[in-house]
Amino acid sequence: MSGTDYKFEGWLGLDKESANGNMVWGEFEPKTWEETDIDIKIECCGICGSDIHTLRSGWGPTKYPCCVGHEVVGTVVRAGSQVEGGVKVGDRVGVGAQSDSCRNRTDKQCKICAEGKYNYCRIRHVGTYNGVYLNGGKSYGGYATYQRVPSFFAVKIPEQIPSSLAAPMLCAGVTTYAPLKFHGVGPGKRVGIIGLGGLGHFGVMWAKALGADQVVCISRSSSKKADAVAMGATGFIATAEDPEWLAKNRSSLDVILCTASSADMPFNEYLSLLDLDGTFIQVGAPDDGLPQIQQFALIFNRIKLTGSLIGSPEDIREMFQLAVEKKVEPWVKEISMKDANQAILDFEAGKPRYRYVLKNEDYTPVAQKL
Amino acid sequence: MSGTDYKFEGWLGLDKESANGNMVWGEFEPKTWEETDIDIKIECCGICGSDIHTLRSGWGPTKYPCCVGHEVVGTVVRAGSQVEGGVKVGDRVGVGAQSDSCRNRTDKQCKICAEGKYNYCRIRHVGTYNGVYLNGGKSYGGYATYQRVPSFFAVKIPEQIPSSLAAPMLCAGVTTYAPLKFHGVGPGKRVGIIGLGGLGHFGVMWAKALGADQVVCISRSSSKKADAVAMGATGFIATAEDPEWLAKNRSSLDVILCTASSADMPFNEYLSLLDLDGTFIQVGAPDDGLPQIQQFALIFNRIKLTGSLIGSPEDIREMFQLAVEKKVEPWVKEISMKDANQAILDFEAGKPRYRYVLKNEDYTPVAQKL
Repeated sequence: MSGTDYKFEGWLGLDKESANGNMVWGEFEPKTWEETDIDIKIECCGICGSDIHTLRSGWGPTKYPCCVGHEVVGTVVRAGSQVEGGVKVGDRVGVGAQSDSCRNRTDKQCKICAEGKYNYCRIRHVGTYNGVYLNGGKSYGGYATYQRVPSFFAVKIPEQIPSSLAAPMLCAGVTTYAPLKFHGVGPGKRVGIIGLGGLGHFGVMWAKALGADQVVCISRSSSKKADAVAMGATGFIATAEDPEWLAKNRSSLDVILCTASSADMPFNEYLSLLDLDGTFIQVGAPDDGLPQIQQFALIFNRIKLTGSLIGSPEDIREMFQLAVEKKVEPWVKEISMKDANQAILDFEAGKPRYRYVLKNEDYTPVAQKL
Repeated sequence: MSGTDYKFEGWLGLDKESANGNMVWGEFEPKTWEETDIDIKIECCGICGSDIHTLRSGWGPTKYPCCVGHEVVGTVVRAGSQVEGGVKVGDRVGVGAQSDSCRNRTDKQCKICAEGKYNYCRIRHVGTYNGVYLNGGKSYGGYATYQRVPSFFAVKIPEQIPSSLAAPMLCAGVTTYAPLKFHGVGPGKRVGIIGLGGLGHFGVMWAKALGADQVVCISRSSSKKADAVAMGATGFIATAEDPEWLAKNRSSLDVILCTASSADMPFNEYLSLLDLDGTFIQVGAPDDGLPQIQQFALIFNRIKLTGSLIGSPEDIREMFQLAVEKKVEPWVKEISMKDANQAILDFEAGKPRYRYVLKNEDYTPVAQKL
């Protein structure tokens, strides 16, 4: 069906029920081939909360059938005659949460793509799954055997990084790396990371790798404290265990990355952890919106509340370089691709410590870090 | 009582009822004299919303009796032997909303004062009224004949600026000037000012004076459109009159200064007026907190939501210089000090176009701009 000798097969969500461990294995039709495309034989794919949210149509109606997964690592098996970024057949590449943007190929002018901030393109931001390419084709993700994507959004993976460790960097990794870098985390900065999950564990490691003076993990309980310290945290605040946590830590941080998305999190108290001119980066997205903000934290400390959306291919390249230089290794558990339905149930139950990666079994396994 | 031949008299709030036009004229005891202090014979004082809010104990219990007013202009009639900032008897000076900070004179270290950001001092921020100085004395504001303040917070007024025009700059002026300057408003920037009141009218004029490419006034109705244009606005959005206002203007601005403080303002729509990496500065403070924020505006456009608190003496000096260079003239109505009770009622009724200034009658009047 695609002029190839391989089949695009994967775990398909056919309706909202798929989010409850009811994806079905089947064939799908990739986007119509263009000479700027590549086909990737998928080695592994991380599980991201967005996958399950999309399966259940949590961000509006999903275009079923949908094959999710946007932390994709594999080998290029076909490359068009006009590929970009120098990828070629045999290269090991990764694809994150975005697989295309307008890049000024429509009749609208896009200053944002012209400046390389593709992840913020408002004209045609194509998600790696559940998206629609300029040529009308649907995008399908990485819980699959093969993937077809525009080469521009495939990033070569440094040889030092094993595939199953590279995979979760492609979404969770860059989603936390990009804003920490953008907001100047480095020597002299005191950084807080709220929530120690898939994103938060990256946050702690990047803040350390970027050279922050202090890296404080903020969690409800101290159950993950030892993990946080092992990842590089220099401090830990357990908000549910210490009634004095705010009084002890008020105005003590320069940058906070909030990966929590609970509607009842103590948001105004979190804001009060920032010192004058501090920056609070919200990357978790509560379904019901943020808790109400008392503007006095904004006014009296001139703090900035902001957000961040994944990263550009260039951000991903930078992140990989930092990971190589500073030996950043996410905590990953590999799971066979055939067990994807159970894996998303376990993911939703909060079991990962700290990221699951689905692995196609015809690849040589990479040592697990556990 | 103060070793002087003049009396400190003014309009005193004795309880919450004072906010309803029931201040009473009477004598008060200024702070105990220190050699860093000055006494000012008050020429005029602007009316600020904070005055009425404080009279009614709107921000917690007010320390009655309270004499409000923190847009104070007058002449130095007494100067201590250790005055700072070079002020001397006979100088015309202004005092804004802050009349002291810790300036590292307590046993705590204050990095903020050391860096000159006195308006953000958290150790001892003394409001010009209803505050308590380090020596225990209470602060009294400018609805009065005389005022005693630490010389450090009195700023000389350039001779080109008439007193009644300088007065409202001391709070409303610097509250809007400081954040626009801090966030880089100038050539190349598209600026929005939400609300055209005492603060907003300054916002429009400062944005123009700073050289912004576009200055867009955002108001519910178009009733003040002609005024906004006369102040320098290049565009006007009337949100209650044009159902398409957001669709037409989405992502069109770089910096927004929001002086509105209604709990039911369309806050998320306002945020959506910002382009990628835009900054939203909230200076209005709704009593019930900000409307709930949908974090997607923060995430998809990486916008920053921030606040700002008045300005430092240095900010006030800079602002005066800009006002002289660019001939910025607030729209002021002078009212006799004796009519202060009626004036605060009219202020609360929203009548100023755009600032009231109370004037002691034994001063030569300055031409009104109406």
